[in-house]
Amino acid sequence: MAEFKLYGFGESGNSYKVALMLNLCGLEWEPIFVDFFNGETRSAAYRSDVNEMGEAPVLEHKGVKLSQSGVILDYLASLTGKFSGNNADERREILRWMFFDNHKFTSYFASYRFAKAFGPSAPDPAVMAWLKGRIDAAYGIVDKHLAASQFIVGSKPTIADFSLCGYLFYPVEESGYDTAARFTNIAAWLQRVRALPGWAPPYEMLPGAQIAPKW
Amino acid sequence: MAEFKLYGFGESGNSYKVALMLNLCGLEWEPIFVDFFNGETRSAAYRSDVNEMGEAPVLEHKGVKLSQSGVILDYLASLTGKFSGNNADERREILRWMFFDNHKFTSYFASYRFAKAFGPSAPDPAVMAWLKGRIDAAYGIVDKHLAASQFIVGSKPTIADFSLCGYLFYPVEESGYDTAARFTNIAAWLQRVRALPGWAPPYEMLPGAQIAPKW
Repeated sequence: MAEFKLYGFGESGNSYKVALMLNLCGLEWEPIFVDFFNGETRSAAYRSDVNEMGEAPVLEHKGVKLSQSGVILDYLASLTGKFSGNNADERREILRWMFFDNHKFTSYFASYRFAKAFGPSAPDPAVMAWLKGRIDAAYGIVDKHLAASQFIVGSKPTIADFSLCGYLFYPVEESGYDTAARFTNIAAWLQRVRALPGWAPPYEMLPGAQIAPKW
Repeated sequence: MAEFKLYGFGESGNSYKVALMLNLCGLEWEPIFVDFFNGETRSAAYRSDVNEMGEAPVLEHKGVKLSQSGVILDYLASLTGKFSGNNADERREILRWMFFDNHKFTSYFASYRFAKAFGPSAPDPAVMAWLKGRIDAAYGIVDKHLAASQFIVGSKPTIADFSLCGYLFYPVEESGYDTAARFTNIAAWLQRVRALPGWAPPYEMLPGAQIAPKW
């Protein structure tokens, strides 16, 4: 039995962030498919037994369940000493970018892609325009940051990179938002992440519901 | 000269989170007004000299500038040993709720309130309805959590409480969303936070632009 169990699903970029870290650290793990699209994360059982926040991913290790990708990445970095930054200043910078990611970089894009690809009805144009404005602003900030830096913090990859890149390795047609074409520094950085030994794209690492984009 | 300088403004609940922590820790600090409503955070000078993410708050301490309220709260908790949780498990729980706050609890409500009270034009009903659905879901999760707990993590206040409560001490008329009336466990918890020695409401702690709600 693998040491780590990862509750998640292929379409979840937040689950992919953790899967990527587990792979890049060379840890033994197995995925546990969460049937998000049929309501599993909203069920009473999931909320009482797996995660009261009703989200994936959840990492189970030594009988303890951890949630929030940022917490899990931080846990794995502490445990392995890998991708964790070189000192307290770098670790604070890593945390800073992970908060920015959760608040503005991943969140609006994840909502945009979800509405475009997987939502129960056609996305509302006003909501999509609002989200797109937020994505453009957040991506512009990261693109500018990466003009002067190989990775998000310092000169080596850290969990901040894995947090921010999570949703950017999905097929462009899912979101219709071509990040790499619009932001060249982000595109170059994604190539550097892609070159790390152990990297694989989301649907090769985690089972998906294999829902085709609808709109 | 005060030991800590806090770049922020009264209308910013994220700035208030830090101001509250500084007060509750009994630290000497002074506010530096950020003229958000006239574009200061979007200016090249602010982005190069204060915060490349273009946000408030920023805490200056010993010549170093820290941004992201979650990072600043964590920094102050480590520095003072106050409101920091009792052990590694509690600190992980604190971080978990702070990520949830940044992603889903503060963020959608802050956008909703901003559009309602301070936006440059009347808010779009479709965007507001979308945000309200997200707020309802996040608030429901926290309300349920607080049915069984006096504070967010454990039996004592921590920085997780200060992160989550930041936007809930503003006048209801700013947002038109009456959290306390809708979520009784959140209302009771806010009373417990309000009772902490040193607590004060946002506009008493930080200078605001004093913009009246428009819509």
